[in-house]
Amino acid sequence: METPPPLRLTFIFFIIIFLFSCSWYSFKLPPVFSGESQATAWLHNSKSRLRARSGSVPEIQIHEPRNHMEDVPHHPLDPLTMQEIYRVRTILSTHTPFSPSFPAIHSLSLDEPRKDLVLSWKEGHPLPPRKALVIALLNGQSHVLSVDLDLGLVTSNKINRGSGYPMLTMNDISVALEVALSYKELNRSAVKRGLSPSDVTCVTPSAGWFGPSEEGRRVIKVQCFSNQGTPNFYMRPLEGLTMTVDIDKKVVVKFTDTGGEIPVPKATGTDYRFKNQKEPLKIKAINPISIEQPLGPSFTVEDGHVVKWANWEFHLKADQRAGMVISRAMLSDSETGVPRSVMYKGFSSELFVPYMDPDENWYFKSYMDAGEFGMGATAMSLVPLNDCPRNSYYMDGIFVSWDGTPFVQPNMICVFERYAGDISWRHSEIPVNGFDIREARPKVTLVARMAASVGNYDYIFDWEFQTDGLIHVTVALSGMLMVKGTPHQTVDQMPSQEAASGPLVSENAIGVLHDHFITFHLDMDIDDTNNTFVKVDLVKERTLPGQSPRKSYLKAKRNVAKNRG
Amino acid sequence: METPPPLRLTFIFFIIIFLFSCSWYSFKLPPVFSGESQATAWLHNSKSRLRARSGSVPEIQIHEPRNHMEDVPHHPLDPLTMQEIYRVRTILSTHTPFSPSFPAIHSLSLDEPRKDLVLSWKEGHPLPPRKALVIALLNGQSHVLSVDLDLGLVTSNKINRGSGYPMLTMNDISVALEVALSYKELNRSAVKRGLSPSDVTCVTPSAGWFGPSEEGRRVIKVQCFSNQGTPNFYMRPLEGLTMTVDIDKKVVVKFTDTGGEIPVPKATGTDYRFKNQKEPLKIKAINPISIEQPLGPSFTVEDGHVVKWANWEFHLKADQRAGMVISRAMLSDSETGVPRSVMYKGFSSELFVPYMDPDENWYFKSYMDAGEFGMGATAMSLVPLNDCPRNSYYMDGIFVSWDGTPFVQPNMICVFERYAGDISWRHSEIPVNGFDIREARPKVTLVARMAASVGNYDYIFDWEFQTDGLIHVTVALSGMLMVKGTPHQTVDQMPSQEAASGPLVSENAIGVLHDHFITFHLDMDIDDTNNTFVKVDLVKERTLPGQSPRKSYLKAKRNVAKNRG
Repeated sequence: METPPPLRLTFIFFIIIFLFSCSWYSFKLPPVFSGESQATAWLHNSKSRLRARSGSVPEIQIHEPRNHMEDVPHHPLDPLTMQEIYRVRTILSTHTPFSPSFPAIHSLSLDEPRKDLVLSWKEGHPLPPRKALVIALLNGQSHVLSVDLDLGLVTSNKINRGSGYPMLTMNDISVALEVALSYKELNRSAVKRGLSPSDVTCVTPSAGWFGPSEEGRRVIKVQCFSNQGTPNFYMRPLEGLTMTVDIDKKVVVKFTDTGGEIPVPKATGTDYRFKNQKEPLKIKAINPISIEQPLGPSFTVEDGHVVKWANWEFHLKADQRAGMVISRAMLSDSETGVPRSVMYKGFSSELFVPYMDPDENWYFKSYMDAGEFGMGATAMSLVPLNDCPRNSYYMDGIFVSWDGTPFVQPNMICVFERYAGDISWRHSEIPVNGFDIREARPKVTLVARMAASVGNYDYIFDWEFQTDGLIHVTVALSGMLMVKGTPHQTVDQMPSQEAASGPLVSENAIGVLHDHFITFHLDMDIDDTNNTFVKVDLVKERTLPGQSPRKSYLKAKRNVAKNRG
Repeated sequence: METPPPLRLTFIFFIIIFLFSCSWYSFKLPPVFSGESQATAWLHNSKSRLRARSGSVPEIQIHEPRNHMEDVPHHPLDPLTMQEIYRVRTILSTHTPFSPSFPAIHSLSLDEPRKDLVLSWKEGHPLPPRKALVIALLNGQSHVLSVDLDLGLVTSNKINRGSGYPMLTMNDISVALEVALSYKELNRSAVKRGLSPSDVTCVTPSAGWFGPSEEGRRVIKVQCFSNQGTPNFYMRPLEGLTMTVDIDKKVVVKFTDTGGEIPVPKATGTDYRFKNQKEPLKIKAINPISIEQPLGPSFTVEDGHVVKWANWEFHLKADQRAGMVISRAMLSDSETGVPRSVMYKGFSSELFVPYMDPDENWYFKSYMDAGEFGMGATAMSLVPLNDCPRNSYYMDGIFVSWDGTPFVQPNMICVFERYAGDISWRHSEIPVNGFDIREARPKVTLVARMAASVGNYDYIFDWEFQTDGLIHVTVALSGMLMVKGTPHQTVDQMPSQEAASGPLVSENAIGVLHDHFITFHLDMDIDDTNNTFVKVDLVKERTLPGQSPRKSYLKAKRNVAKNRG
């Protein structure tokens, strides 16, 4: 008998691209939940707050901050602990080129053991040697280092002679902003627009080189906004003003301001915070609603990282660059109970966001959100009940600062069981054949979620595990637009070339067209490491004259690619 | 200033086509909920049943059967009430051609008033004249009748001289099965396959004509299965056996059996009912989980049909052919509170399911599930907590039997608020610019659901309303395969022509390739009846040599079609 494909595992990348709708919605749509206590407002609308609080629903569970100083690794893929990070820092500081001058740390994370070692490891076995991979910058040179924690040694130190620089550190961004904000021309430009220097907020839109004068230097563009009257400064650009900052030399290498005549769009109506809404929206209030589990959740998180639920088991960790990494995902066979391998590793490898505007101040905007800023580095704490439902488990990220010391990104990932009232499988029989059948199985899934706030945009990543073996990956895009200023207030005034940039979203503000491309690293190991990736494209074929049009076939074009194993 | 499109209304038809996976899953996957009391088993896994019952979660709400004899219409689009149906029957029975011989009623439903009358009608106004549209069959002639309930008259009676016949009645199907089951050749074929006649269950796969001998008659194919040892007879075909039955003459007009050598696939492992599972599946039990609303739901259903929730209002009714009809969907403006029109009417107009097998017993399978069987007629009662979450409102269908009398299809539609732990909008600020922002709005939507069981397949229709103006339509496909018998037990034995029909899903059983096409009637009235439908196809264009590759544009091909208003 034919063995059916063991797991009908499908990845649906459901990428919701709002393009330019977000900022408009942010002040048009119902913020039915209060700003400062959104969780409470959500569960209890104002009229019924007291009743609901004394009601039958359990109280909100707030995750207590954990002390990570005593953490020890239990699994070969567990991220470096705080103590291990300190130890790597000590080892590095005694490594010759870094003594006495400690480098800037751009990346410091577990150097994962070889796959065969991880696959052969069993619980209770000693861990494979713990190693760290470090990218450090000293005197303009990028070092790629291997550190063996057991030996207490730097085992390899390669200097990158190729193009490119490591991921930006938070310090790089701070330095760039500091240099830009203290640049006199910027003050002059602000004043010319009627702003006081304290009203100006700047951001670092893009790293990279765009012309011979920028080659061979660590440069980043800086652009500025008015924060006057709104936290949504992305709606108030100082259009036409761009600075190029050399992060290492701490100087502005180029300053252009061609937008002095373009007004800064108004602040009115741009504050999206619930607490600052003056006019209540004309919408019927929604009663408290929540996912309840009177006996608690059905999943466990063992040793901080191994998630077990229903027939699934996987390793979950936070990563400063990728955000969230799923490893060793396994599904137990429903008949034997034996775990079967599904995926060795999966994570979002990059978010590429190019803008479609050839304007001098826009052409270079081609963000690489993971590789430049880091999806983990920009993932803020999730807010219980607003960002994740009740009974969520919150996992912290242990990351590394530019000085090589560890810090905690608290509540960065949540894990929860999802029940949306959906049906996973059902069958009823119509009475004609005498069978009285009403079978239905409600659908419950397990979700691992994080949300990265990369400037104006928030990316919500959900890895959802279904009991039928499907892993459903969703990326939802939220946040608001970073608009382009224009002298025009109505669409009729706009010349066609300007209109090609994108639609006018409010007076003096264009939503520039752009894409969000999200790529994934997926090392699938379905039952074995030797997998084949098949892309099936259905091709419509017409039957020949004389053939029955009912005798139709669909031919599939198959593109087969070997998994690298 | 440009007016932004008032509602970014997008319909996502998310058609989950399992093709051949359903039957396989049905006995491989976790039926964690008991057959006879699935709802209870779902909420309380076996170990904790007593604790959970005395716990804090409200008891299961079972919808009491309603008495519809006193129903009166309140809205121009309200379906015919039971009393109105009886009245139509009385009017028809005194109409000349139908006295004394009452026709078979194939369709009897509200003849909706003209759109302008519905749009100008206001609550409290008298209803426009109540009319019924009837399709009746007498002496082989299809009558299309208009009945005016206020005048008590048949105002129009047209005989259809064209091709085609009205939708099948349940009686037509019963007659066809009766005729087939009493056909002697069938008994002989069953016995030849080692079955006793009582083991045989037949279905009516397709209406329609396939050859000159069938033209001009109401014929339907009948095929049979062994129900021995399983309710899942769809897995046990008497392959090669097809009868063509003339429903009016009540005779078998053609009988072929070419499959005497093909064994009936085994019953082992095909019973999907939870109560009949012998071996528990190796899967960790899932704790009770449910959507809770301590203060109850936030929506109301006025006069049985007008649903009001958050900023939405729409008319909802059950329909014997279309299943579920949404009308007059309106969204109130968030600033003024004034309702704005979104959609005049929306429903699934047809489900077309052609099979891809040229075999004599398969080529004619090209189901029209709505037009032949009726999505409402086949929509069985929804089971609380299994098919719809707690706090659902259940709506009955008032349908018409083939003898013209009304009957109740209870709990056919459910309406509920959906909360899946998702985020509708969020923004956090990374700390670099000094803003401490953690805004998030959980996502709550309103769903209207029905599930049609058309033979082996169950179609779950969800119309989901979001507060941002989006209506998300989902069609989920469940149930099981109707397989094709084959003499072969392994895929290696199968000749290539047979393998082209579809994969071998178990011994002697092929899952024949087929499609599920679902079409919709969508009369959109966004802010006005004068709408335009625009289909945008993005076209990739390469920049010319010498042009900056960064200065890229996407050109959109626009296909514009006028809404008929």
